[in-house]
Amino acid sequence: MGIDPGTQVMGYGILKVINNKPQMMAVGVLKMSTKDDHYLRLAQIYERIITLIEEYLPDEMAIEAPFYGKNVQSMLKLGRAQGVAMAAAISRDVPICEYAPLKIKMSITGSGRASKQQVSYMLQKILKIPADSMPKQLDASDGLAAALCHFYQTGMPAETTKYKDWKDFAKKNSKRVSK
Amino acid sequence: MGIDPGTQVMGYGILKVINNKPQMMAVGVLKMSTKDDHYLRLAQIYERIITLIEEYLPDEMAIEAPFYGKNVQSMLKLGRAQGVAMAAAISRDVPICEYAPLKIKMSITGSGRASKQQVSYMLQKILKIPADSMPKQLDASDGLAAALCHFYQTGMPAETTKYKDWKDFAKKNSKRVSK
Repeated sequence: MGIDPGTQVMGYGILKVINNKPQMMAVGVLKMSTKDDHYLRLAQIYERIITLIEEYLPDEMAIEAPFYGKNVQSMLKLGRAQGVAMAAAISRDVPICEYAPLKIKMSITGSGRASKQQVSYMLQKILKIPADSMPKQLDASDGLAAALCHFYQTGMPAETTKYKDWKDFAKKNSKRVSK
Repeated sequence: MGIDPGTQVMGYGILKVINNKPQMMAVGVLKMSTKDDHYLRLAQIYERIITLIEEYLPDEMAIEAPFYGKNVQSMLKLGRAQGVAMAAAISRDVPICEYAPLKIKMSITGSGRASKQQVSYMLQKILKIPADSMPKQLDASDGLAAALCHFYQTGMPAETTKYKDWKDFAKKNSKRVSK
């Protein structure tokens, strides 16, 4: 499960890994009204994540977490949104990993400076998402991107160390075989 | 219930209001080990608050919330601690109010520049707490101070507008009585 919590918009995406291949289960966005007060928005973030956790039972949560912001005020608000999202995971015993936006873009497009459009395009290609299943709001793909980045960080190493049998293992690890 | 959430220490205090008089139910502090990772500390805050809510069933939560900090990094961490505390309240449908540290000090000691010692001393006097019931860590009293400040903000107005009967009301609101 990937989450991009913000004070205005929260993007989320859920991946299922089958035979070490990621597959999209859900992608979406929670838009908060600027009319709603601060606590109501935090409550909306909390409740949406709880609903998603209970529906999809994710094994892990990846959060997109910027470490720098315009000013202390905006960082405090962002920290609260992140804290609420983390508490939802904590309350359901879902382990949390966080990734900087640059790291996420890098792992998906190969460039830390990729645009939201480029990230969205690569997600569609990699996960083979039909164009009409992808939400038009680019913010939605940020959550999915966090989930895919987390898969690359944790799921891929398993694939590179997968062997057919002992012969295959010995061949690929000749230095470790005592003669 | 009053909470002063920090990244190292969380102070809490619980008041019961009987006949419009605040009475201390609990006061304490949660010290987090600097050895523990960030998520574990957030989980400790979340779990302690959930335990307190389930034990004391508070009607409202008052949070001490500084709006300014040293830098964006520390504000992000503080925001997360606040967010986790708020999510605990949200998950149990406890309404949240926040107060700036200056406001809390002002409402308890009459001065926004009061020291922690002065706040602690005034809390003991106002709530008639035996000296040995007050935790020695001054951080503990910050949560209790937030709770008492919240009582002054919301509980006291009720007292000043309380009337014995209609005669009493008419006497105290002579301008509102049509002749």
